[in-house]
Amino acid sequence: MAPPIVLTTDFGLSDSYVGVMKGVILGINPHIAIIDLTHLIQPQNIRQAAFVLGTSHHYFPTGTVHVVVVDPGVGTQRKAVVLDTPRARLLAPDNGALSYVLADYLEHPPERPGIAAVPPQCRAYQLTETQYWLHPVSNTFHGRDIFAPVAAHLSLGVQLDALGTPLSELVWLPAPQPVEEKGRILGQVIYSDHFGNLITNIPKRLIAPGSSAMVEIKDHCIAGLRTAFHHGSGEADGDLVALIGSHGYLEIAVPDGSAAALLNAGPGEPVKVSLTRLS
Amino acid sequence: MAPPIVLTTDFGLSDSYVGVMKGVILGINPHIAIIDLTHLIQPQNIRQAAFVLGTSHHYFPTGTVHVVVVDPGVGTQRKAVVLDTPRARLLAPDNGALSYVLADYLEHPPERPGIAAVPPQCRAYQLTETQYWLHPVSNTFHGRDIFAPVAAHLSLGVQLDALGTPLSELVWLPAPQPVEEKGRILGQVIYSDHFGNLITNIPKRLIAPGSSAMVEIKDHCIAGLRTAFHHGSGEADGDLVALIGSHGYLEIAVPDGSAAALLNAGPGEPVKVSLTRLS
Amino acid sequence: MAPPIVLTTDFGLSDSYVGVMKGVILGINPHIAIIDLTHLIQPQNIRQAAFVLGTSHHYFPTGTVHVVVVDPGVGTQRKAVVLDTPRARLLAPDNGALSYVLADYLEHPPERPGIAAVPPQCRAYQLTETQYWLHPVSNTFHGRDIFAPVAAHLSLGVQLDALGTPLSELVWLPAPQPVEEKGRILGQVIYSDHFGNLITNIPKRLIAPGSSAMVEIKDHCIAGLRTAFHHGSGEADGDLVALIGSHGYLEIAVPDGSAAALLNAGPGEPVKVSLTRLS
Repeated sequence: MAPPIVLTTDFGLSDSYVGVMKGVILGINPHIAIIDLTHLIQPQNIRQAAFVLGTSHHYFPTGTVHVVVVDPGVGTQRKAVVLDTPRARLLAPDNGALSYVLADYLEHPPERPGIAAVPPQCRAYQLTETQYWLHPVSNTFHGRDIFAPVAAHLSLGVQLDALGTPLSELVWLPAPQPVEEKGRILGQVIYSDHFGNLITNIPKRLIAPGSSAMVEIKDHCIAGLRTAFHHGSGEADGDLVALIGSHGYLEIAVPDGSAAALLNAGPGEPVKVSLTRLS
Repeated sequence: MAPPIVLTTDFGLSDSYVGVMKGVILGINPHIAIIDLTHLIQPQNIRQAAFVLGTSHHYFPTGTVHVVVVDPGVGTQRKAVVLDTPRARLLAPDNGALSYVLADYLEHPPERPGIAAVPPQCRAYQLTETQYWLHPVSNTFHGRDIFAPVAAHLSLGVQLDALGTPLSELVWLPAPQPVEEKGRILGQVIYSDHFGNLITNIPKRLIAPGSSAMVEIKDHCIAGLRTAFHHGSGEADGDLVALIGSHGYLEIAVPDGSAAALLNAGPGEPVKVSLTRLS
Repeated sequence: MAPPIVLTTDFGLSDSYVGVMKGVILGINPHIAIIDLTHLIQPQNIRQAAFVLGTSHHYFPTGTVHVVVVDPGVGTQRKAVVLDTPRARLLAPDNGALSYVLADYLEHPPERPGIAAVPPQCRAYQLTETQYWLHPVSNTFHGRDIFAPVAAHLSLGVQLDALGTPLSELVWLPAPQPVEEKGRILGQVIYSDHFGNLITNIPKRLIAPGSSAMVEIKDHCIAGLRTAFHHGSGEADGDLVALIGSHGYLEIAVPDGSAAALLNAGPGEPVKVSLTRLS
């Protein structure tokens, strides 16, 4: 069976929008598996979509077709694109939603938002070949009219260069990068999950094993990193803990509780880590 | 592969109800694809189910089996029915949930709620043949005990006339129709979506191309129709716009915002459109 | 096609967690159907997961692989286990989430929480064979790293005894049992559903046919059991009713309304039933 088509949108679950996209896909390729990554991206929150996609696309089979529709500019001059990487084919509006994925392949990712060159291991095309679209094409629902049918055709084996014209650069909306100075790392929360775990932009590799870390957020100070949410013993309920989470980033949590609620914090909240080498 | 089974319910996503229906289906036809249209129809809101189904069933492959379970009368004398159209087979309680679909095939749809004749291109049956049901049959969950197993048998090729007895009419709960008078259209909001877009009952065809439209809702007046949510330039954030939405109806929106929240409006809210022919 | 893999978690629907589990599964077995039971178990609410699984697993095809991840102890010494029953194979942390399933096969289920012997019709193993896991294994997301890949391997035909070491007992977190005394049954609400129906721990078999039941909850008294939510005639809107619900337990409901909201009640709320034999 072909690798699945995976959908990530801000469409929510109360309307027919997601179901209709699946109907369009199955009308073209009745044999394809369709997986929901999530449809609860906050409306128009491109950065959130970029994070969710960028931290999860590694877990899907090679060749998976991702469809990302967080698309405030639908119906305007923004491009619809496909990005081909060694791992996946990703369809999205050209608005930065693919930035985390792109970052995996860029040797020197630009520091600031703007544009980024398509890396040599990848290819990108603007979707222009309307024979792969659903007609009439609306100005408000390209998920249904462009992205879903193109994804289905891709899953059937249509080649990328048949879909449109090559692109050498894509819109670039990078994650804010942590700053290292004098044994400290200055980062921030970039994602708050269903459990209220606060995921920061500080990757595992910056926190050297053999160091002792002190994590500061708001007026709280967390001494040392956990290896799991629970110790298995002893901690008071409701205590803040810090650990390397399943995304590979430093994460602030409350075991069996919500750090987001306890701290009243979310994306953008500054986080400081002080490292002391253990000798 | 056979066309999918598509589920539309008010069951929500927190209980096992939807999953159990899928379990029952796969126990009968392990090879069928099952798609969720939505399970967040407001509890017992038959009109909302009728709208969601009626504006999306066109997008599924011919032969799709729809299961619609918004069923306040479960366990009473209300009928369980199947409607066969040139496009789909639809299973539902006979409570009006199929009215929008039926309207596609009725030459003279009745103006008022009541009953409607099954159109000549369609067939309808009351589900009475209990050998296609799951036993024991509960009085509170026909989604699991009647609709899911019958859908699975349909997807395996069981003929409609094996399922029950022919019906010549169905319960009819039509959408409120807009009124045209003196160059004005008097309509109303019939659906509010996840983004807070307000979808009206005024179809595209009533707004002639080459006209200039003025849309009034509550104390707001919107001059002209957009072709997309964003102009690509210039509008102030938070401004109300009007456009023909992806459902094919006049829609009132706030780009990157919620018209429902801004106007504190929802289904039933009057909308007036004044048309001026451009010469 | 093999029986499906069914997922039950407290992961919610806004993050990539559930989608990533499916990606891992399809990377190992691209042909398997994956069904969501629910992902809206309250965070860390093991009892709720046990109820949802225990009242629905009967409806899935024989051989279904269930994956239950409500796992506050992830990364600690708690075991990861597989339970094989005549009906299903169930993967979960060993924290009591399988207790309702286990109860189906226990002749003398222990009254108190603790441990229960694996019944003779069943087998249980601790998952220890790391070659069936995804590496590196995190300490915070065994759903992705252990349960999903093991489920996929099971669905491909890997034998249970290849997955780890046999267990003779499992953690036991039973449902509170109703007490019968002097023609009365003292029970409690154990689950509140999407509609606000209050499901009690009083099973159908305790309410003998041919009896007249009086149900008390908070200061309300409900005379007699309905056979369906609606009579089809007459009741005042908003009236409390009692009936045997689709789970097979006594349920308290408000037709077209919410008993949970009306009574401001949920799990733990005492319910008393007085039975009078009709002669």
